[in-house]
Amino acid sequence: MIKSRAAVAFAPNQPLQIVEVDVAPPKKGEVLVRIVATGVCHTDAYTLSGQDSEGVFPCILGHEGGGIVEAVGEGVTSLQVGDHVIPLYTAECRECKFCKSGKTNLCQAVRATQGKGLMPDGTTRFSYNGQPIYHYMGCSTFSEYTVLPEISLAKIPKDAPLEKVCLLGCGVTTGIGAVLNTAKVTEGSTVAIFGLGGIGLAAIIGAKMAKASRIIAIDINPAKFEIAKQLGATDFVNPKDHDKPIQDVIVELTDGGVDYSFECVGNVQLMRAALECCHKGWGESTIIGVAGAGQEISTRPFQLVTGRVWRGSAFGGVRGRTELPSYVEKAQKGEIPLDTFITHTMGLEKINEAFDLMHEGKSIRSVIHY
Amino acid sequence: MIKSRAAVAFAPNQPLQIVEVDVAPPKKGEVLVRIVATGVCHTDAYTLSGQDSEGVFPCILGHEGGGIVEAVGEGVTSLQVGDHVIPLYTAECRECKFCKSGKTNLCQAVRATQGKGLMPDGTTRFSYNGQPIYHYMGCSTFSEYTVLPEISLAKIPKDAPLEKVCLLGCGVTTGIGAVLNTAKVTEGSTVAIFGLGGIGLAAIIGAKMAKASRIIAIDINPAKFEIAKQLGATDFVNPKDHDKPIQDVIVELTDGGVDYSFECVGNVQLMRAALECCHKGWGESTIIGVAGAGQEISTRPFQLVTGRVWRGSAFGGVRGRTELPSYVEKAQKGEIPLDTFITHTMGLEKINEAFDLMHEGKSIRSVIHY
Repeated sequence: MIKSRAAVAFAPNQPLQIVEVDVAPPKKGEVLVRIVATGVCHTDAYTLSGQDSEGVFPCILGHEGGGIVEAVGEGVTSLQVGDHVIPLYTAECRECKFCKSGKTNLCQAVRATQGKGLMPDGTTRFSYNGQPIYHYMGCSTFSEYTVLPEISLAKIPKDAPLEKVCLLGCGVTTGIGAVLNTAKVTEGSTVAIFGLGGIGLAAIIGAKMAKASRIIAIDINPAKFEIAKQLGATDFVNPKDHDKPIQDVIVELTDGGVDYSFECVGNVQLMRAALECCHKGWGESTIIGVAGAGQEISTRPFQLVTGRVWRGSAFGGVRGRTELPSYVEKAQKGEIPLDTFITHTMGLEKINEAFDLMHEGKSIRSVIHY
Repeated sequence: MIKSRAAVAFAPNQPLQIVEVDVAPPKKGEVLVRIVATGVCHTDAYTLSGQDSEGVFPCILGHEGGGIVEAVGEGVTSLQVGDHVIPLYTAECRECKFCKSGKTNLCQAVRATQGKGLMPDGTTRFSYNGQPIYHYMGCSTFSEYTVLPEISLAKIPKDAPLEKVCLLGCGVTTGIGAVLNTAKVTEGSTVAIFGLGGIGLAAIIGAKMAKASRIIAIDINPAKFEIAKQLGATDFVNPKDHDKPIQDVIVELTDGGVDYSFECVGNVQLMRAALECCHKGWGESTIIGVAGAGQEISTRPFQLVTGRVWRGSAFGGVRGRTELPSYVEKAQKGEIPLDTFITHTMGLEKINEAFDLMHEGKSIRSVIHY
């Protein structure tokens, strides 16, 4: 049992508390990781708000980290002490029906227990004053030391800066992957991106990588347009500047609609708009944002019968252990400008400020340095 | 001006009246066709019911026909008198943005006027007692003589029996094409087909052609299961036999859901069930049925984010002039058993009985012989 500084969510809608928790050693197939840095993502805030039906408290949030292997449990073969890793909230066991299908990154090997805040054996490795603390998304990167299944860690090169590539553990990879892996945007296409948070901006990078001819950035906060432009967006639309539905604005702007659209907010009305701004006959819309519990999307079926396609993407369709190293490589080469995303850095003790900055729309990503 | 026997829909929700209408000669780019036989489809009944927002009365319904070219207008080059043809409610001009895209069959060349019951020049060729009668879906096959744009006619071999291959003008092609062209069902896949009318039965044929390993036929009328079985369905589910939602029944039956599903009814609740019975990670659902005006589909976006895809299909994604001849060829070879669909034949004067049989669920297709 070791001690670890951690930001604990004791209950929904309360500030995280920085305390020293106890971390049990890794069991069979598990790995102890020292987190060096972690991003703070909207999904952490979503769960903290109490809206996430899978949220269990008390827990240690955080799922966008970078760290170093400190110890390995029995039977761990793919990692050793000193390896640099990115925690994966979507595991890759390479053995389940999903992994073997070759059609999806949604490995189900640890899904059931992960959704309950538990390790695969049904217990937690965290405790505080003898009481169990739950895991979160299988990662819990808001603790300096955390335990994960071996299959939930992507090994990356040691020369990659963990305080930057940690962002590839969620938002940046999600946005780029949705464009390249899920939608498979083709050269010369027109693309509309709804919401310019971390995921939306990453989707712009993906669209630029795919050589889209036109990248339309949409947000109600025009302060986001400058960064969007730097990353490659060509058109900027603020729905507040228009009286008509935003889908109609985009359809007019593009002579019939875009080839691909991406919803990067989690707003079901926007998901509809993103579908309906697609071109008749072939436009495809990909939902990336996570909607509130129980909320539903809707549209007239005619939208689909006339050739539009509605799909979604989780972690950008990326198989973490297999593909994440190539994302790190791209970041190292400067093809993924991670610095653009990191607007704030701070120590763990200031993590609640990172949430405030996010809610106020002042940050893209705050990165916590342990 | 020639005289033609026709079944005219003078108003919604009234029996068709068999009268002699006047048919004006084909104008530039138009063709006069003598219809030899026509199927009666649910879409005709849908428009007759008054629910179709594009329905204009008085009109001549019918869009599933087979005929012979009687005269051609100025500038017609691809057809000549005596050619055998199938009318297309989805034209193929080969020149518009849609045709040139190579991504869709939804040619828009005559769409705007066709939707208003008019020929491309904005007028009608039909009249009765000097009053104009509107066209329907650009076809109006319930008239012995009808006029269509050249681009709305597929030329087929003269040895194909028009009283059978007329069914390739709509339902049969729609069902098979949705499976092969739109969903692109792969060998060994599991498939669920909701609704065993003409389109659903055709989708079974398509799934069989695609070598699906399991074809689940779903209908609340168990009398349909025998034909479904003859065509290749392997499993039969009557939602009335189950207390739980039908999507849950299918998911259990298939250890997680099907690879592909097809909605062939036009019921928005069933469209949702068809999506939700798809396998997490890769299942794709295709909407073929036409819902009532203003009705909407809905689901939780989580269904898409976890890898399901929602799409739709119109005329099976088939480019009529280019691809329909190959469907006729398949029917000639016995690969598409059209006889199975034709449960009733009758003269034009009994066409209202064809509607009654359809509403009573007693027919798959009635074919009118002129």
